[in-house]
Amino acid sequence: MDFDALLSKIKPDEIEKEKVESLADSMIVFINNLAIEKGISTEAFLVGSVAKKTWLSGKADIDIFLHFPLETPLDQLKEQGLYLGHECIKKMSGKWEERYASHPYVTGHINGYNVDFVPCYRIENSKQLKSAVDRTILHTHYIKNHLKEDQINDVLILKKFMEGIETYGSEFKTGGFAGYICELLILKYGSFQNVLKAAASIWKQGSVIDLEDYGTGNLFSDPLVVVDPVDKKRNVAAALTTQKMAEFIVSSRNFLKYPKIEYFNVVNHCSDINAIKNKFNVRGTKTFLICFNPPKIPADAIYPQLKKTEISLSSKLDLEGFKVFKSSYWTDESKIAFIILELGVWSIPSYKNHEGPKVWDELHQERFLSKYGNEAWVEDDRWMVKVPQNNNSVEIMLEFFLKKENIHHLRIGKHLKDAILKNNQIIEMKEFLSTENISKELLEFLDDFLNPGQNLWR
Amino acid sequence: MDFDALLSKIKPDEIEKEKVESLADSMIVFINNLAIEKGISTEAFLVGSVAKKTWLSGKADIDIFLHFPLETPLDQLKEQGLYLGHECIKKMSGKWEERYASHPYVTGHINGYNVDFVPCYRIENSKQLKSAVDRTILHTHYIKNHLKEDQINDVLILKKFMEGIETYGSEFKTGGFAGYICELLILKYGSFQNVLKAAASIWKQGSVIDLEDYGTGNLFSDPLVVVDPVDKKRNVAAALTTQKMAEFIVSSRNFLKYPKIEYFNVVNHCSDINAIKNKFNVRGTKTFLICFNPPKIPADAIYPQLKKTEISLSSKLDLEGFKVFKSSYWTDESKIAFIILELGVWSIPSYKNHEGPKVWDELHQERFLSKYGNEAWVEDDRWMVKVPQNNNSVEIMLEFFLKKENIHHLRIGKHLKDAILKNNQIIEMKEFLSTENISKELLEFLDDFLNPGQNLWR
Repeated sequence: MDFDALLSKIKPDEIEKEKVESLADSMIVFINNLAIEKGISTEAFLVGSVAKKTWLSGKADIDIFLHFPLETPLDQLKEQGLYLGHECIKKMSGKWEERYASHPYVTGHINGYNVDFVPCYRIENSKQLKSAVDRTILHTHYIKNHLKEDQINDVLILKKFMEGIETYGSEFKTGGFAGYICELLILKYGSFQNVLKAAASIWKQGSVIDLEDYGTGNLFSDPLVVVDPVDKKRNVAAALTTQKMAEFIVSSRNFLKYPKIEYFNVVNHCSDINAIKNKFNVRGTKTFLICFNPPKIPADAIYPQLKKTEISLSSKLDLEGFKVFKSSYWTDESKIAFIILELGVWSIPSYKNHEGPKVWDELHQERFLSKYGNEAWVEDDRWMVKVPQNNNSVEIMLEFFLKKENIHHLRIGKHLKDAILKNNQIIEMKEFLSTENISKELLEFLDDFLNPGQNLWR
Repeated sequence: MDFDALLSKIKPDEIEKEKVESLADSMIVFINNLAIEKGISTEAFLVGSVAKKTWLSGKADIDIFLHFPLETPLDQLKEQGLYLGHECIKKMSGKWEERYASHPYVTGHINGYNVDFVPCYRIENSKQLKSAVDRTILHTHYIKNHLKEDQINDVLILKKFMEGIETYGSEFKTGGFAGYICELLILKYGSFQNVLKAAASIWKQGSVIDLEDYGTGNLFSDPLVVVDPVDKKRNVAAALTTQKMAEFIVSSRNFLKYPKIEYFNVVNHCSDINAIKNKFNVRGTKTFLICFNPPKIPADAIYPQLKKTEISLSSKLDLEGFKVFKSSYWTDESKIAFIILELGVWSIPSYKNHEGPKVWDELHQERFLSKYGNEAWVEDDRWMVKVPQNNNSVEIMLEFFLKKENIHHLRIGKHLKDAILKNNQIIEMKEFLSTENISKELLEFLDDFLNPGQNLWR
């Protein structure tokens, strides 16, 4: 396969490079001068994909780290770092918003770019780590020192492939591969093709990639272990899910067998509402959404809570005798979030048989009968009794679980619990698809729910 | 509790005794004379409850055993035994029917009594046993030699109690206590009250009663072990089910706590068809009957096959994703037999998710995908594929299983399989209760199905 045409689209040309790099330079100069002027002991550095020259054309996120000496008090670091970031955004006529990782940073929207200003400590090696962001400069140095000029193309092709098959991104929403892992994989295997060949044929659950031969791979029990070359106690792939690792392996095999340029673009999901309605209809199931307003917390905090809630609701319904055929969750990260539950069994009998003690023990029999009286009977050597099952449709059961006094039966994170209790709606899919003003993104999610695995093939 | 009133009803009075015993005597005299006349080397003996004087008033079954010398060829024993039986029935102006136990015998309906004529070998001890019926004379001797005159009342009360709570009878239909066990229990514990006290408080799963201290109780793994005093290698209670043993234990406790004369009569089951209809309705389940003509085989052979079929059908439906809430079977032993299946889940989705291999192995993936193509997807590290589920209502599923080409999926005895294939009807309970001319006995069975355990209390 000839990647030139692809590269011409995804590799930043000289104009873009010049634009991004000069913008970054001018901001760094501005901050460093202002720091001197204000007597702030810090220095701005360019880090991340722009510094490493591995960004995909049109998707440059500029990361400027403000390095403070190790002895700087944390409060002072935050205050002075955010101050310099804000001043820089103001100077560049950008818009700003503050964000939180392991500590606060500020993001500016400047000339069409997202620019992160992150105050951190200047460390020389991983032993001096004070917070997760401090490691970033070590990563940038490592890649700049080891990645050969011509391997940058391979990194870009790999990142774009990952994007196309939707395994790119280490945030919780995706659970895929970070950009830094893509770079390390190219260092390990030498080229895009070799990374795919390794994934297709060599990778197993728990495979270890250990560029610096630290021998610390067995410290981790993740699906894939990529020992951080700058910190032997860290698995760079800790956030990668088995799901995304498996999808990458399978797509790699499929691509190697029939290479097609289409693998580098996300598949076109169906967003035709009537087609989706029909697909739900023919499944012979009944699907419910529990809709609510997502809590105002970072996206990376919402997704694990949504997952946990989905699992807890599904297992509770199964325990009660319903049968969850498939479940998932979705949020636009601002106005709407929902758990989606597709049921194979959505109504259960009005009674259930409750097991009592075995008949052999007279004392246990006494206790059991004093509770249930002579409605009980014996099956083999066990007491049984019929007890009413009031919540015998899934709607009623869900309403029961989502009441303030019952929600403790579920395992739900605090923020999501509050959000659900504040306002929720249990709605059947048929009705949802008839009444709501539904976004294309949501429809595409539903299409993927109905037909998972579309992204594995082209 | 004063048992005199009860005994006056259940103990044969002098008139009944005289009538039964003189009838038996005259038949024995007739047979023995005829045998001499015809040169047949045999002797008729009275055995069973009439010989032991432990029959319940009005329920005398007369058992006449024709003892042949051990050296008699089996063919000759059968031929001459049946001949003498037939001649006796003819002489007494009775009606006859031939039956089969371990070997053939003939039953006569004479003056309102059932009289069994059973040819067998005359043995002195269990080592000489040639067939199961040979043992009967040893049993009769043992009880006549050991049961005290006043314990006969206790045997009668115990048998009547067993009848009342429906645990009496060792045939497969009931799976309860044989008359002989009742006699042995009285020998062991001395009185009716003591038998109940032992069952209530001492009996455990696998309890051993070993009147002759043979020490062979550990040879058996049945719910209750009653070592036969005339054959240490036989458990008299081998046919007793855990179910019936448990019911006897529980009823004994209930009786000892609040003794009531009503325990000696079978409970009045509801036979109001509308009440039964309503009870089925409010359960929120759906009940189906698979009706067919029972095969022409002895009742003791039908019941185990019905049970096996019930279990096989239930487990198959559960495996397919339906949920059997309760199941049973019934037959009038002549015209109709059915398996009854009450379902909590009677329809399932149009598709099911079929698990494929894990993704790690490229070869297994190839095989799987060559079969299912790119309809497949990945869940965690496992290939999955949606396959159509055609039999997604329980009626259709049952029809499928009962087809000639599919019935081998079920574990069904040969006779029942032939009977079901010849002619069967799958009918919903609602419809069955609306259209059929339903016997009182069947309605009472349905009432017991809906409310099991009624016989445990009064």
